[in-house]
Amino acid sequence: MTNNLDTFFGAISDPTRRAVIERLAEGPAPVSELHAPHDIALPTFMKHLKVLEAAGLVRSEKKGRVRTVHIEAAPLAEAEHWLNRQRRIWEGRLDRLQLLAEQLERETK
Amino acid sequence: MTNNLDTFFGAISDPTRRAVIERLAEGPAPVSELHAPHDIALPTFMKHLKVLEAAGLVRSEKKGRVRTVHIEAAPLAEAEHWLNRQRRIWEGRLDRLQLLAEQLERETK
Repeated sequence: MTNNLDTFFGAISDPTRRAVIERLAEGPAPVSELHAPHDIALPTFMKHLKVLEAAGLVRSEKKGRVRTVHIEAAPLAEAEHWLNRQRRIWEGRLDRLQLLAEQLERETK
Repeated sequence: MTNNLDTFFGAISDPTRRAVIERLAEGPAPVSELHAPHDIALPTFMKHLKVLEAAGLVRSEKKGRVRTVHIEAAPLAEAEHWLNRQRRIWEGRLDRLQLLAEQLERETK
């Protein structure tokens, strides 16, 4: 779990890699189409894809000369869950503080 | 926005820093208390805190000899929003694919 989140958050800390994920959320795409909007050399772009693949965020398959890349949704959900959990704990604390403040206000009236 | 997410995701790609966020979600804490569960030297730990502070995830204030660290919730919400958005787009696509499959099935009956 810890390692998953390490590699996952590391993978999406880069704007090129987040752009690839944003594109793949809409559906699988060949490498050439994924690369097209990015003003970087193809080998550099392939390194970004490898980071995403190593983090389990995408998988790819080759048919003939075309390699198609797909998103893997499970790590996205796991990371979202972690963030959501921290926010809920934090908001729960704020709610308790507010209740306490209201209680104090009533008691000092 | 892009830079925020870069530094944010980079900051939480480390297990020590995520543990600090998990602790701070429950409320502010002095540096000594945050450091205690981690088997690393204090200067190393302070570097982790600086990364979190640079990413806007925490802020700290010193009173006398005690430095207290607080969580900043806005970047957490922004990152959660990004992940949530990708998942909703991806799930929306799956829903459309399923509708299409059902339609095809009816038409070929």
